[in-house]
Amino acid sequence: MKSFVSVASDSDFPLENLPYGVFSVGNGPKTIGVAIGDRILNLREVAHLFEGIPTHGKAIAQAFQQDALNDFMGLPRPAWLEARALLQKLLSDDCPTIRDNAQLQKSLVSQSDAQMHLPARIGDYTDFYSSIQHATNVGIMFRGKENALMPNWKWLPVGYHGRASSVVVSGTPVRRPLGQTKADDATDPTFGPCRLLDFELEMAFFVGGPETKMGENIPIDKAQEHIFGMVLMNDWSARDIQKWEYVPLGPFLAKSFGTTISPWIVTMEALKPFMIANPQQDPAPLPYLTHSDPYTLDIDLTVSIKPDGTTNDHPVCHTNFKNLYWTLKQQLAHHTVNGCNMRPGDLLGSGTVSGPEDNEFGSMLELSWKGTKTVPVGETTRKFIQDGDEVTITGFCSKGGLRLGFGECRGRVLPARNI
Amino acid sequence: MKSFVSVASDSDFPLENLPYGVFSVGNGPKTIGVAIGDRILNLREVAHLFEGIPTHGKAIAQAFQQDALNDFMGLPRPAWLEARALLQKLLSDDCPTIRDNAQLQKSLVSQSDAQMHLPARIGDYTDFYSSIQHATNVGIMFRGKENALMPNWKWLPVGYHGRASSVVVSGTPVRRPLGQTKADDATDPTFGPCRLLDFELEMAFFVGGPETKMGENIPIDKAQEHIFGMVLMNDWSARDIQKWEYVPLGPFLAKSFGTTISPWIVTMEALKPFMIANPQQDPAPLPYLTHSDPYTLDIDLTVSIKPDGTTNDHPVCHTNFKNLYWTLKQQLAHHTVNGCNMRPGDLLGSGTVSGPEDNEFGSMLELSWKGTKTVPVGETTRKFIQDGDEVTITGFCSKGGLRLGFGECRGRVLPARNI
Repeated sequence: MKSFVSVASDSDFPLENLPYGVFSVGNGPKTIGVAIGDRILNLREVAHLFEGIPTHGKAIAQAFQQDALNDFMGLPRPAWLEARALLQKLLSDDCPTIRDNAQLQKSLVSQSDAQMHLPARIGDYTDFYSSIQHATNVGIMFRGKENALMPNWKWLPVGYHGRASSVVVSGTPVRRPLGQTKADDATDPTFGPCRLLDFELEMAFFVGGPETKMGENIPIDKAQEHIFGMVLMNDWSARDIQKWEYVPLGPFLAKSFGTTISPWIVTMEALKPFMIANPQQDPAPLPYLTHSDPYTLDIDLTVSIKPDGTTNDHPVCHTNFKNLYWTLKQQLAHHTVNGCNMRPGDLLGSGTVSGPEDNEFGSMLELSWKGTKTVPVGETTRKFIQDGDEVTITGFCSKGGLRLGFGECRGRVLPARNI
Repeated sequence: MKSFVSVASDSDFPLENLPYGVFSVGNGPKTIGVAIGDRILNLREVAHLFEGIPTHGKAIAQAFQQDALNDFMGLPRPAWLEARALLQKLLSDDCPTIRDNAQLQKSLVSQSDAQMHLPARIGDYTDFYSSIQHATNVGIMFRGKENALMPNWKWLPVGYHGRASSVVVSGTPVRRPLGQTKADDATDPTFGPCRLLDFELEMAFFVGGPETKMGENIPIDKAQEHIFGMVLMNDWSARDIQKWEYVPLGPFLAKSFGTTISPWIVTMEALKPFMIANPQQDPAPLPYLTHSDPYTLDIDLTVSIKPDGTTNDHPVCHTNFKNLYWTLKQQLAHHTVNGCNMRPGDLLGSGTVSGPEDNEFGSMLELSWKGTKTVPVGETTRKFIQDGDEVTITGFCSKGGLRLGFGECRGRVLPARNI
């Protein structure tokens, strides 16, 4: 499968990928596009080519002219597949429609000329806690080995509601938060900049399909009709603020100062070749959480840090998304089993992804084991994140010569506001 | 102060109130209106009368033609005051503009002909936990008297992110959720309908003023520029689901199946006469949470239950919003101190409001003391909420002959989905 647009062999965006995003050029409007090689196909410019698709053509053409992907995500899954099939055809090297049309050729813009935006208006953002290694690591640090995993952890995908307003696209700087913290040996808390700033290596999926009604659920065998696609996510965390605030209602200001996602949504259809058998779950999950089709994703993930004033990203963590204990289908079925309604554009995070080895831990909290050891970062070391550090997550899938990736999720830390 | 629209002496909506809401009539469009007596003034129809206001007139006129209040809320506070002043003038009995204009008279519709909708698109919904009596009651029940209040409780307004998609307007039925629960003496959880369904008596405020940027805060002395107005709220809760799921990340599916708010937003300007001295706080709050101007609200609150097939609302709780320990200003200053950005239309709940007396507890959990005693409801009794029960919250302020209210926050419980 080959495109007439040249695609470098290490590109994240071959013809098999075709992730959706929202971009602008100069002072131009926000526009939906698809990444191919180092280009973006402007879907507003070619929307008319989709009108002829039977059943969903008109709806697709209309959705492609919006400034966010919510409308397109909100179409039923068959529409996503139809759009993808035609996009692949239009961009393939044997299709003249765009290739040989000088006017339509202009709808291919260079990624380096484009500014990326959030791909959708995020109605609600939920974060799960679905990596058993991460939950165990954190449990050992805060409660000891015997009580590491809470009794509910293996029965349901633990999650919590997050803050949607502060989800930002890769490249947006994130300011170190101020807040209350309390030292173990102090009687009173103090106010000031967070001292234990951390990243969390996560991925997240966007909900798609028609909005569900409150009181209805999405059964697990229908879950794939509502899972649109995935992005990389850095769930920035203020460990010292979290420790003081989080009882009994969970993380709040320790998380809501910023969450970064990558701009390109890789669809589940593109990820299909990389789905592998699900992990053994013991105890067996309850029926509403049971599915046997493979929906675990083999995605290679790396986190790097670039200290202020330096030029290279230094990897500090290298792991794989397949380490997740709960699948995306289980997360969505659980989230809606109580009747919670889902809207296209809702974002569901995986929770920090950690693997079993020391270098597979998805946060500085784990990598530095609560600050008890240093983590090498190029010529220097870190226990937590410092001002000016740029943290980047990358991810890709590869199998039998096919490689596709997620682009990057990047964010630089600005110093705290003056007080 | 008197309106040419007749206002009954026990009406919630005299000329001093003028709450904003969104209504429709028949199959007509969603329209912003203001309640006066048993009427609604259609603000789309009279929007042109606001254009002449210097500075914000054009913006107000435009905002009044939308189908939700977000744009109006997003104007700076002086615009809210200007709009209110003109509304009070236009509706007063000595102003002929609407009173004597047959065409404009038609912009006054009967509340009984109108269907109410959510007043705004809610971007993010946060729920606090700011009643010391409620936090103490729950603490005693679950952790014993010695550990009732967590060490952080008196230092910061504890809160958590809630689910925005399932916030619905008064009158929307709420379906009993399904979920996992685990009996204390069982090894494994089971799946089925919630058995300990509860209401939570709350109020909530809508954020207003121009959107803030991520990384910026709203200092406590600017908080009132971002507090638009208040509604009643029932934060439906599934106690048995909550108990099993909530460690360590807080309430999730136990809350996200439905949250009901009253349709009319009573502005802070209307509530000004009912602001009283704030409660003594010991320890003294940190400087970023310190303010001395009275911002505690004297609002009389009642919760009633109407069992299925009966006709009367039977009060089960009667308390006052002044029981809140943390003020709305403190909640907002705390919420943003980490740089979390606020958008007009964000909703911040107070947490369950309980007073010191037994009949002032704002949930069945507390009224039935964890189900250890029955609560009289007319001819019958309750420990928790049963299918078909309709729960209604009402609230009003009264002082020196002036009385204004919030309308009602009503919701009926439907039986759980079949499994």
